[in-house]
Amino acid sequence: MDYRNKITVPTLLLDEKKCKENIRQMAWKAKENAVIFRPHFKTHVSLEIGRWFKEYGTEKITVSSLSMAEYFADEWSDITVAFPINILEMDRMNRLSERITLNVLVESLDVVSALSKNVLNDINVFIKIDTGNNRTGLSYQQEKEIWELLKTIQQSDKLNCRGFLCHAGNSYACRGEKDIQQLHDDYSRDLVAFMAPFKKEYPDLKLSVGDTPTCSRANDFSWAYEIRPGNFVFFDVMQWVIGSNHLNQIAVAMACPIVAKHKERNQFVIYGGAIHFARDSRVHPFLDQNMYGLVVHLEEEGWSAPTHKDYFTRISQEHGVLQVSDETFDKYKIGDIIGVLPIHSCMTANLMKKYLTLEGEWIDRM
Amino acid sequence: MDYRNKITVPTLLLDEKKCKENIRQMAWKAKENAVIFRPHFKTHVSLEIGRWFKEYGTEKITVSSLSMAEYFADEWSDITVAFPINILEMDRMNRLSERITLNVLVESLDVVSALSKNVLNDINVFIKIDTGNNRTGLSYQQEKEIWELLKTIQQSDKLNCRGFLCHAGNSYACRGEKDIQQLHDDYSRDLVAFMAPFKKEYPDLKLSVGDTPTCSRANDFSWAYEIRPGNFVFFDVMQWVIGSNHLNQIAVAMACPIVAKHKERNQFVIYGGAIHFARDSRVHPFLDQNMYGLVVHLEEEGWSAPTHKDYFTRISQEHGVLQVSDETFDKYKIGDIIGVLPIHSCMTANLMKKYLTLEGEWIDRM
Repeated sequence: MDYRNKITVPTLLLDEKKCKENIRQMAWKAKENAVIFRPHFKTHVSLEIGRWFKEYGTEKITVSSLSMAEYFADEWSDITVAFPINILEMDRMNRLSERITLNVLVESLDVVSALSKNVLNDINVFIKIDTGNNRTGLSYQQEKEIWELLKTIQQSDKLNCRGFLCHAGNSYACRGEKDIQQLHDDYSRDLVAFMAPFKKEYPDLKLSVGDTPTCSRANDFSWAYEIRPGNFVFFDVMQWVIGSNHLNQIAVAMACPIVAKHKERNQFVIYGGAIHFARDSRVHPFLDQNMYGLVVHLEEEGWSAPTHKDYFTRISQEHGVLQVSDETFDKYKIGDIIGVLPIHSCMTANLMKKYLTLEGEWIDRM
Repeated sequence: MDYRNKITVPTLLLDEKKCKENIRQMAWKAKENAVIFRPHFKTHVSLEIGRWFKEYGTEKITVSSLSMAEYFADEWSDITVAFPINILEMDRMNRLSERITLNVLVESLDVVSALSKNVLNDINVFIKIDTGNNRTGLSYQQEKEIWELLKTIQQSDKLNCRGFLCHAGNSYACRGEKDIQQLHDDYSRDLVAFMAPFKKEYPDLKLSVGDTPTCSRANDFSWAYEIRPGNFVFFDVMQWVIGSNHLNQIAVAMACPIVAKHKERNQFVIYGGAIHFARDSRVHPFLDQNMYGLVVHLEEEGWSAPTHKDYFTRISQEHGVLQVSDETFDKYKIGDIIGVLPIHSCMTANLMKKYLTLEGEWIDRM
């Protein structure tokens, strides 16, 4: 059955082939570098899509909350929660660490002390290092605090110090492959140099890194222990604007009914708004217009390439407005379904809660 | 039990007293104007909160999708779907119109013709008029099309033409009470004048209006048939920036654990990001900084007024970063819960899925 016949309301389409190819490429890059591939599952949050990773040898994963870790713990036995551990969830953490190998992030003595006192089972601890994103973690300048943290973690019975974990979130400001490569070269050089004295004292310290832009475009990760990219599983228009992927690698598209046409301004009103897409936007690099997505045509086997003349120009709670060319305007009538590549696939998938494959099968999320 | 003891993860707090007072005031304004109060339920989407409206005499409601109409149909018998009707959901519409009085929006002959052919039970139809928001509806200049629509609807057996429906969405660009009042005066004058010739021919045509800014600040709605504001039930920081409400009328606040403190930049990292708050932002009118919310202190009976020195400065998928004063910085430790007034309560509530009252009771949403 043509998947398009199942659509009457905003629906998130998933191209399984593109998705698996994204997984395969990243798993291969990890293998070539002899680093562990520990993908971040916060983008898809689906047991079924998680199983696709197993086909490529993945054994360990990353998530962003304890609730997500609970969801995946049925099928994964080694999970890193890449978020500063929330000491209010100590009971949850203890229940989880009975079942699986749990790795958590710390960045202060207060939290280490709370863990030491309350943890019931062994857990692995990474120190979060801020490599310039200025969000969480200890900066390169805070060497004294890092030495102290290392010492304190070592003194605890139940806490195993694993090493340093970073996220080069500033790669999201890159525009183009060269830019990403430059950031990667600078950041990996600085990080390895920074780590050297700590490694001398603690030879077992590991280095966990990984964001989608650098993991997609840079090739040398041999200096790291593991990589944790997440968004690459679907990619999206935001990553395309950064330079992480080609548009034909984007593995998800929204399918939305057209509910009104306005010839006087060449616009479609679609059923599909901020409660479906989220409100993330980017400036279109060619059109210089703010946009909430790129328009594609839905075909039996998948979707077309975007035309770059048609884009998602305005968003409300349930409405979207598409700005389209004459050609696109004439191609559709009210009640037809049109496709939109989302700006930020993590956020769109979080709102949509399930996926429809091009084979017409539904895939659940947490 | 102190509601604060129930919080270990991001939680949406609801101050029932403030919420009921918001409802009471709006119901009273409708009564004074002798217009029907048909509140938009897309903000709270909760049967229980819906029942609070019944205490103030509300009998008819507005929603933004057929799925929301299905949810409320168990307790409400007259529902308007204030969204251009999606002809792909015809079966759903027919099942619903068996149970309740259903009012839908049209703006084209194509849709009226699809309805005429497929509708099984009587439904009420409003023509959507665009009063300057340029999103959906027919503009004042499209008189010819409106006459034609009216004629075609009248010819259909099952479609009852109720009148015109508008949403002055351009009131969201107002800044301050005077601005809102001016927009209201201009828009109501134009609308009544525009409607006059149609009313001469069709004396029963009704006028349905209502957005939170004008309904909160203007007083004369005697020229309308019904008002449909929605956001006012909670209000939020966005409405405060527009000028619709005082900060102490905001009936919801997020409660978030502090997971890291950064003295060098006077920032807290909270567990609470775009999957909890949504990514709506506004420029703080005094600080001239982009913000994702205003910081409040949680107390036993509710929350404090925001200080205007503390604001939500940066948001990621699950992280938030609060920029705070020295005083606030010293007041909190890691593991404490801090409050944030959301920018856009409709979007935050949509993500959070349930409410915790200050009495410690959970309230469900759709």
